[in-house]
Amino acid sequence: MNIVLIGTGNTATVLGKKLKLAGHTIAQIYGRNAADASELAYILDSESTNYWSVVNRDADVYILAVSDIAIEELLQELQLPRKTIVHTAASVSKNILQSSTSNFGVFYPLQTLKKEAASLPDIPIIIDASDAKTLDLLENLAESISDKVVQADDVQRLKLHLAAVFCNNFVNHLYALMEDYCRKENLDFKLLIPLIKETTASLNKMPASDAQTGPGVRHDESTIEKHLYLLERHPQLKEVYLLLTKSIQQQS
Amino acid sequence: MNIVLIGTGNTATVLGKKLKLAGHTIAQIYGRNAADASELAYILDSESTNYWSVVNRDADVYILAVSDIAIEELLQELQLPRKTIVHTAASVSKNILQSSTSNFGVFYPLQTLKKEAASLPDIPIIIDASDAKTLDLLENLAESISDKVVQADDVQRLKLHLAAVFCNNFVNHLYALMEDYCRKENLDFKLLIPLIKETTASLNKMPASDAQTGPGVRHDESTIEKHLYLLERHPQLKEVYLLLTKSIQQQS
Repeated sequence: MNIVLIGTGNTATVLGKKLKLAGHTIAQIYGRNAADASELAYILDSESTNYWSVVNRDADVYILAVSDIAIEELLQELQLPRKTIVHTAASVSKNILQSSTSNFGVFYPLQTLKKEAASLPDIPIIIDASDAKTLDLLENLAESISDKVVQADDVQRLKLHLAAVFCNNFVNHLYALMEDYCRKENLDFKLLIPLIKETTASLNKMPASDAQTGPGVRHDESTIEKHLYLLERHPQLKEVYLLLTKSIQQQS
Repeated sequence: MNIVLIGTGNTATVLGKKLKLAGHTIAQIYGRNAADASELAYILDSESTNYWSVVNRDADVYILAVSDIAIEELLQELQLPRKTIVHTAASVSKNILQSSTSNFGVFYPLQTLKKEAASLPDIPIIIDASDAKTLDLLENLAESISDKVVQADDVQRLKLHLAAVFCNNFVNHLYALMEDYCRKENLDFKLLIPLIKETTASLNKMPASDAQTGPGVRHDESTIEKHLYLLERHPQLKEVYLLLTKSIQQQS
């Protein structure tokens, strides 16, 4: 397909690379910042512009890969009544696009995307569309870059995003807290990497609820007391420790 | 080396397999339950007993791989003044062993160990000892099964265990909460696996604090409000969401 990418950030860059690798043509990149657009166009063997007036009018799909707030601003300019326009946002309704075209949808990558990343991750794509024909087109496009494609409406997509916040943002934050703790306590955080890898690998073998170990689920009050003593000097960590231990004991 | 394993649980089983693979001889397994001891002895090509009176007196190392509470009970029976005895516990002082022998130490595997696991994970080993000669012996033993061996005293070992609780127990609990949430909300948890893998893989590329994304670190109040609305029916999740979002915003 011929694709116009609107945006030059992490999502635009990684989706652009995936789509190009799958044989699609990135006909044009639009970016407010001319230098960013030109840089991404170079990577994707494409053209770039920062003027709406010269945006390519002949593409099959226009992918709005910009921040939630920027979507609304851009849509005032983007009037392509017969073209397929999609956004990539988790928590923005698909219907925001209906003032710009009658063929619209959502193309949401359920992955943490970093434009600097050397290798491209697997990206489940959550799609939705205004009509069956557009849904078909988006399904084909998604399946060309991913083997995990599902349709979900606005609410289900938001729920998946919420789950992603727990599984990525919150998990990563626990790692960041421990990096910081290890630095302060003169411990080597790298010693924990095999354990972290095993925690992830275990998800392929058994439900996480069956894999739960540690003093919380064992109600090992003696060890919990020792940990809380260590955390006297780390009140933020102590609060997290207490709540998650309580939550583990509520669930088990 | 000739090793006597005391215990038949996850730690005894996985360490036993690693040690045997590295060429050591598991001379004997002691277990309170004769059937469990005999089963592990079969796996490790060893012998087993459930009587102290016939415990092998000629091994190089005795590894006490039992629960924290069982260590104290067992030590009343275990008097081997010239032998090297170690325990594998994170939060038990090494000195608990001094009534049983003058050569004692700790051999703590910083990993989540499951006896059912088909493949053996990498296991950093945290060692400590009563004296330099015992430390040397334990270092050699540890290095025969691991390329990550460090010495740490009781307090540093407990701190590493605390970090392991955050990186494994708490992280796994977040996954368990989301498995449960997805089941209740009719979402496919497996869609989140590529994201979870990427979160882990990212630790090899950049500090977790640099990899932090999501509505919390962006102070994206609009998305946070939408998530909290979804969580009205899930008070336990809401409490975790609020605290971890606050913690992310404190750290950034």
